[in-house]
Amino acid sequence: MGKTSAGRFFEDYAVGQRISHAVPRTVSGGERALYHALYPARHALYSSDLFAETCGLERSPIDDLAAFHLVFGKSVPDISVNAVANLGYAAGRWLLPVYPGDTLRSESEVIGVKQNSSGKSGVVWVRTRGLNQWDDVVLDYVRWVMVRKGNADAPAPEPVVPVLPSAVAARDLVIPEGLDFLQYDFAQAGAPHRWGDYAVGETIDHVDGVTIEEAEHMLATRLWQNTAKVHFDATARDGGKRLIYGGHVMSMARGLSFNGLANAQMIAALNGGAHANPCFAGDTVRAWSEVLDKAETPAPGVGAIRLRLVATKGAAFALRGADGKYLPQVLLDLDYWALMPM
Amino acid sequence: MGKTSAGRFFEDYAVGQRISHAVPRTVSGGERALYHALYPARHALYSSDLFAETCGLERSPIDDLAAFHLVFGKSVPDISVNAVANLGYAAGRWLLPVYPGDTLRSESEVIGVKQNSSGKSGVVWVRTRGLNQWDDVVLDYVRWVMVRKGNADAPAPEPVVPVLPSAVAARDLVIPEGLDFLQYDFAQAGAPHRWGDYAVGETIDHVDGVTIEEAEHMLATRLWQNTAKVHFDATARDGGKRLIYGGHVMSMARGLSFNGLANAQMIAALNGGAHANPCFAGDTVRAWSEVLDKAETPAPGVGAIRLRLVATKGAAFALRGADGKYLPQVLLDLDYWALMPM
Amino acid sequence: MGKTSAGRFFEDYAVGQRISHAVPRTVSGGERALYHALYPARHALYSSDLFAETCGLERSPIDDLAAFHLVFGKSVPDISVNAVANLGYAAGRWLLPVYPGDTLRSESEVIGVKQNSSGKSGVVWVRTRGLNQWDDVVLDYVRWVMVRKGNADAPAPEPVVPVLPSAVAARDLVIPEGLDFLQYDFAQAGAPHRWGDYAVGETIDHVDGVTIEEAEHMLATRLWQNTAKVHFDATARDGGKRLIYGGHVMSMARGLSFNGLANAQMIAALNGGAHANPCFAGDTVRAWSEVLDKAETPAPGVGAIRLRLVATKGAAFALRGADGKYLPQVLLDLDYWALMPM
Repeated sequence: MGKTSAGRFFEDYAVGQRISHAVPRTVSGGERALYHALYPARHALYSSDLFAETCGLERSPIDDLAAFHLVFGKSVPDISVNAVANLGYAAGRWLLPVYPGDTLRSESEVIGVKQNSSGKSGVVWVRTRGLNQWDDVVLDYVRWVMVRKGNADAPAPEPVVPVLPSAVAARDLVIPEGLDFLQYDFAQAGAPHRWGDYAVGETIDHVDGVTIEEAEHMLATRLWQNTAKVHFDATARDGGKRLIYGGHVMSMARGLSFNGLANAQMIAALNGGAHANPCFAGDTVRAWSEVLDKAETPAPGVGAIRLRLVATKGAAFALRGADGKYLPQVLLDLDYWALMPM
Repeated sequence: MGKTSAGRFFEDYAVGQRISHAVPRTVSGGERALYHALYPARHALYSSDLFAETCGLERSPIDDLAAFHLVFGKSVPDISVNAVANLGYAAGRWLLPVYPGDTLRSESEVIGVKQNSSGKSGVVWVRTRGLNQWDDVVLDYVRWVMVRKGNADAPAPEPVVPVLPSAVAARDLVIPEGLDFLQYDFAQAGAPHRWGDYAVGETIDHVDGVTIEEAEHMLATRLWQNTAKVHFDATARDGGKRLIYGGHVMSMARGLSFNGLANAQMIAALNGGAHANPCFAGDTVRAWSEVLDKAETPAPGVGAIRLRLVATKGAAFALRGADGKYLPQVLLDLDYWALMPM
Repeated sequence: MGKTSAGRFFEDYAVGQRISHAVPRTVSGGERALYHALYPARHALYSSDLFAETCGLERSPIDDLAAFHLVFGKSVPDISVNAVANLGYAAGRWLLPVYPGDTLRSESEVIGVKQNSSGKSGVVWVRTRGLNQWDDVVLDYVRWVMVRKGNADAPAPEPVVPVLPSAVAARDLVIPEGLDFLQYDFAQAGAPHRWGDYAVGETIDHVDGVTIEEAEHMLATRLWQNTAKVHFDATARDGGKRLIYGGHVMSMARGLSFNGLANAQMIAALNGGAHANPCFAGDTVRAWSEVLDKAETPAPGVGAIRLRLVATKGAAFALRGADGKYLPQVLLDLDYWALMPM
């Protein structure tokens, strides 16, 4: 009886399947400290209990992307260990803050499958949920991946392609209970710019860069218990270069975006995202943002801002070439809603 | 008056000596998070308070090897700072789980000495114990090291060679109070294989590999307050390569063994271990296991499984050559008892 | 409206200005574990709650230099992001221990300005304070930096050069309430040498060396939320080498000084300090100390010892050349008061 898991192949997925992902995780101040050591994360709500209390929360939660990585990491052995590519994200919402002491697990439902014309692989869509110790959903998102077939002769399933929104509607954003930015301390947060100071279409160069090291991305990826071997084994890919977990680039870019978006405190929704090109150790990651949309929310003093966050290893504002394809220096194109004091 | 310590030499040890090792340590969620960032550690009992509670523990303990490294690290300045080689381990038992908030110290008793025929060094056997804040022993093991003589003219002591068991007897394993695997959640643990599914003689290739970085092994080794300079100072050894702490390889291999042994949750005994060849940054570590023995235990649903865990920088199942010596690619040969749901 | 901050230039500072630095921080066992993973920190008072309780404290505080780095890091965007050089420190005092759970913020007052004769830059002196969640000052020090002018035509301010003590007077040292070394456990602390065993003028070679890695200094510098790009972006400086945060060298040297000064437990004052030469990844850092002064204190069993701590990438006891300038291998010359059992 084989004891190791080779993971699922395309033909192993069927619409309606529910997969409970393994290895629940209790988080502590240790995960928080590591997140701050790994990324230039400075958003005050995630750094100070006092600041979070002034905003109506019980204390400072774990960074929203840390919660995302934890939930995502658990799904890797079941969803993407045989993936050729992580194609996209949609319809992601953060529903509850995650605090030190919480225990997270995650589960996915297959919501779409479509074999590629080559017959060698197919696209699988899953809705993944993170749940805490009370079985409350803390995070919910759709991602789709291209997965190899294990058996090339397996018949193609009837294609099901889910209809996904291009963005989460502002009215569907979930604001943490009690969140209130009326007493918001802009000086302690690090910048005076409020929701009203940002205009749709505005772009911001976040100025700084970080040169990536192997040890750091592996520490991060392991912390989220993401086991994909391409991130750890230099012999697993041609050229002997470890592929950096796309989430590492997300968190690096989000950390860098503090300089220009210090008050885009909480991430409320993930509208979409593409890992445009691979990132390797030695790359110097920079970031820029574009304001895509703005909306009011029912919470006191809380506005929502929809942002494109682009990580690049080249100049700011790089995105797509004349052919509409991502430029080779673009690493990440992320579309999210954040909550900001009005 | 010299203020720095050069450590003990062979002639400084005598059977019956008791050494109280310095620098007690209070552990927290920080040590736990770092352990999970440094190693692909995914055993659910050490990741989730809820999972641990379902198994009858008060909450999730610190990984057993983290407790081992903490206790071991304290002994380094007194036992092995002048060691030529760490020769072996025997008769190791984990007696109590270590929880965040516990404070560990360690002490050793010299139980054997034997000068080498060269007259330049000798072998010292010590029994080392880790104790918590209530002076309860949490961990107890024997190791022996070859130590240089400081004074070549010091007389050889009467040789005392302790009789050590080739393995801890199954009846001597200490099961944590309350441990109960009757409600064990195999889906959350990550694999369906129970104690009855493993056969003595079975071997498992744990599939994945991790390429080792300098920054990571130094972070780990310092975290256990292990001060041996060969791990940190690139100028201290010929060739300018830092020697990686053998315990780093132990934890890396144990983490990798999750894929195939996800339910070998708790380490109950260390029967033996050899650091067969040195490990350096840049090596890609893989692991394989062999089932050496199985035993029932009095705890509900809890079986014991004796495993050989081999770390290698080459192919799986490598161990010894025709001459009976470890092959050059073998890094570690560890023999331990683990507790597994029946 | 520009959203990113370019930081202040010389002409933006005026004596009497008070600057509240952004991003408060709640510390936990995570910061403590990371400090111990990053540095060979072994002082028992900062490692064990039990040891700290025996010394009259409520539990083990965060390392004094960790508190310093946290307070310092917050000041970087406002004080030194455009600094050409960090020139010195004076009159630093630790006023209260920082415990896991405390929230720190920091603020500075400009106490001196003097334009350089070149007209292109000037020196700014600030007194920086770290405050906890009760607005108690935990740390207070003066530093001065050379800052570029943003507008070369800005008029030179009237020069104000603060009078600073060459050292904090022993009578001005603040001893933590309740500190008592009468029950001090020298065996657990790791060395038998008490205050009375050290003589003014005595020098100590701390023996060990640590070869510095990029990943480690970046983890450390980010953990203190220090954003200066020269530490992170290999493309930001000529030669493609990241400049290591001077505080990383401070903590490395202080950790190494355990071997020889294990009982110099608490840092009570920072009399002065110079980052004599830049440190880069690949350098092997060693340390030596000189006893500069000694004093009694009113606390039971607590003596004060004034130490020069020198970090070097060369031989021990290197300091200045015949010309009175720091030798090129000297990285740090730090002058501090520590508290030691009598």
